[in-house]
Amino acid sequence: MVYITRRERFNAAHKLWHPDWSTEKNHEVFGKCANENWHGHNYELFVTIKGEPDPDTGFVLDLKYMSDVIREEVVEKLDHKNLNLDVPFMKGLMSSTENLAIQVWNILEKTLNDGRAILHCVKIVETENNFVEYFGK
Amino acid sequence: MVYITRRERFNAAHKLWHPDWSTEKNHEVFGKCANENWHGHNYELFVTIKGEPDPDTGFVLDLKYMSDVIREEVVEKLDHKNLNLDVPFMKGLMSSTENLAIQVWNILEKTLNDGRAILHCVKIVETENNFVEYFGK
Amino acid sequence: MVYITRRERFNAAHKLWHPDWSTEKNHEVFGKCANENWHGHNYELFVTIKGEPDPDTGFVLDLKYMSDVIREEVVEKLDHKNLNLDVPFMKGLMSSTENLAIQVWNILEKTLNDGRAILHCVKIVETENNFVEYFGK
Amino acid sequence: MVYITRRERFNAAHKLWHPDWSTEKNHEVFGKCANENWHGHNYELFVTIKGEPDPDTGFVLDLKYMSDVIREEVVEKLDHKNLNLDVPFMKGLMSSTENLAIQVWNILEKTLNDGRAILHCVKIVETENNFVEYFGK
Amino acid sequence: MVYITRRERFNAAHKLWHPDWSTEKNHEVFGKCANENWHGHNYELFVTIKGEPDPDTGFVLDLKYMSDVIREEVVEKLDHKNLNLDVPFMKGLMSSTENLAIQVWNILEKTLNDGRAILHCVKIVETENNFVEYFGK
Amino acid sequence: MVYITRRERFNAAHKLWHPDWSTEKNHEVFGKCANENWHGHNYELFVTIKGEPDPDTGFVLDLKYMSDVIREEVVEKLDHKNLNLDVPFMKGLMSSTENLAIQVWNILEKTLNDGRAILHCVKIVETENNFVEYFGK
Repeated sequence: MVYITRRERFNAAHKLWHPDWSTEKNHEVFGKCANENWHGHNYELFVTIKGEPDPDTGFVLDLKYMSDVIREEVVEKLDHKNLNLDVPFMKGLMSSTENLAIQVWNILEKTLNDGRAILHCVKIVETENNFVEYFGK
Repeated sequence: MVYITRRERFNAAHKLWHPDWSTEKNHEVFGKCANENWHGHNYELFVTIKGEPDPDTGFVLDLKYMSDVIREEVVEKLDHKNLNLDVPFMKGLMSSTENLAIQVWNILEKTLNDGRAILHCVKIVETENNFVEYFGK
Repeated sequence: MVYITRRERFNAAHKLWHPDWSTEKNHEVFGKCANENWHGHNYELFVTIKGEPDPDTGFVLDLKYMSDVIREEVVEKLDHKNLNLDVPFMKGLMSSTENLAIQVWNILEKTLNDGRAILHCVKIVETENNFVEYFGK
Repeated sequence: MVYITRRERFNAAHKLWHPDWSTEKNHEVFGKCANENWHGHNYELFVTIKGEPDPDTGFVLDLKYMSDVIREEVVEKLDHKNLNLDVPFMKGLMSSTENLAIQVWNILEKTLNDGRAILHCVKIVETENNFVEYFGK
Repeated sequence: MVYITRRERFNAAHKLWHPDWSTEKNHEVFGKCANENWHGHNYELFVTIKGEPDPDTGFVLDLKYMSDVIREEVVEKLDHKNLNLDVPFMKGLMSSTENLAIQVWNILEKTLNDGRAILHCVKIVETENNFVEYFGK
Repeated sequence: MVYITRRERFNAAHKLWHPDWSTEKNHEVFGKCANENWHGHNYELFVTIKGEPDPDTGFVLDLKYMSDVIREEVVEKLDHKNLNLDVPFMKGLMSSTENLAIQVWNILEKTLNDGRAILHCVKIVETENNFVEYFGK
């Protein structure tokens, strides 16, 4: 098994806000991340798949194809968007990086997995100090 | 003259939107940066001052003091904010990185300049591919 | 399980020196790292925990809390210190990055682990070319 | 078990080209990577070994020794070379990063493994957006 | 005046080889950079222009336009190419980063300069340890 | 004129301590940088020279030569050293990054300047948040 990773990037706005909580509780729990008028990040997305290299190409998976799928299925839905308002697959979920990684996994598990290439990890870097990894259930 | 630079960071939401233009023209000119519900960035701010090192300390300016001033005067007003809605010194201006750098310069010119230390450059990095520098008029 | 990682930083002095060995043997084994008057590094510390996101917050663990614990229990004891002389939990140990990672793990295992969040990895980057990871026994 | 990683770098030319395929098929499958006159990269190589720290040194393995072995056995054979033409251990293989990582593993498994230190991972970064990891069979 | 910078990237092969010199002299002067079968790099190109922000857009120059021009006029001619063999504007010149920066300046001076935006600097990063800047004659 | 820059690195210990001041005043002015038992950094040194490229080589200055001079004249005297105790050219000076940059300039001005290559800038990065540049008197 060889593991290959592709990085893509997206810039998005969000806020952490629980709709059933008071303003006071939201500010208490989420601090400045609960700013009513949003804030945002340059997110980095690292997608790792594993598999055996194809003898003819030397590739586990063509990285151009992998990039195209990630951009079409994930990045176009997140880039220059509001994670709370604009992204169907985040509706009803807190827009934490944890939940974002799980949802991106769920999308890519359907679109990147095939007989030979298997999704291994979705990593999302929110800031230079914070990142999240999800390896599936 | 020695030049010293301090980096600070802030995460903010914004959109590029001209209030006198139609939705169509805004999208035509600003592309995905005109997304109605905002997007955001991890901004990096580099502030450079120049001066002669003090013989007693070896410092052009104490970096802890420099960091405190930048955080109090600039970063606290930008971090986890919406550049279009929450920031008094950006009101009435397009929230481009160019305008942001000029406004940060105008603030720091009043607060960081003293007899010995002179503000030299404000640099703001919006993404790993785009940055702006302003050296005053 | 979702894995979240927080980065913190500290700047410290140290030397590699075995008290039972001659000066010659210390220089032979540790090279320039045995410089009598110390040298130092900007260390980066990455702490990873794993757990299920809380349905209300979307968090495995609040990163502000995680940062506060790491700073209070670890970083304040290492930052701007001498690893050989100033750090109680390194007394009697070679100040290698390997030993440092193990000791940081031992501290954080007691303070960061709770029912839901489990310490997974302590990674310490000593230079851009060298780093160490410890996942517990 | 503690994991230690050493980074080394090499700059090399290569192209992706299947000798049994037509020019058209090579361009169709490998795109611009099939440029007849080669292209190249600044590769980063991360080698990770695992083991117990030696009580006398605090080291899993001396990083100077580890660097010397990697440079002598691997980097000198790849740096400022053509992966397709100049590298004996890549002869007859597609010069994909996947195949390169496997071949580097095969070399280092023989030279870095001893009773106490065990090769764990070979990671090769081809660009800031693409990397490969191999953990052995 | 505000300065804005756009980063683009390209991966290319080259060698340093003087056609009028003997093989021995080429190896003596250029060392491993004279490898007959080429080597290569991930180059980073930073293009800086200066000008007054447009009051309507807040832009010195639209970065999307700037990126399009740089890619069309420069990057497409360099990316996945051999600097010595494939690039018309490098013909007859040593493929040093110095010469490359001058040639890129000469191209962009004609295509990026207009009444309001003025080309200020072309910076090319060859490795993490080496880069070149050119500000015109 | 073309500007070329070479990066070198060194790891050193130091403290900020004025010998004529009380312990209290040293701690008040220099904070944790006055830790009696030292602290340290991974310093990055960027040396920039300017000149006309040689028509035969395409080089302003051979980077291997430039690296050799910087390592021999500067890095070997700073790497794995104590800036306050081990470095002759820092004796009697506060070991601030400002003073370090001036002293490195003074050394390299004598050794790197020749008829064609002129020292332009010495930049020293102390942490990811702090750096100093010196361009001579």
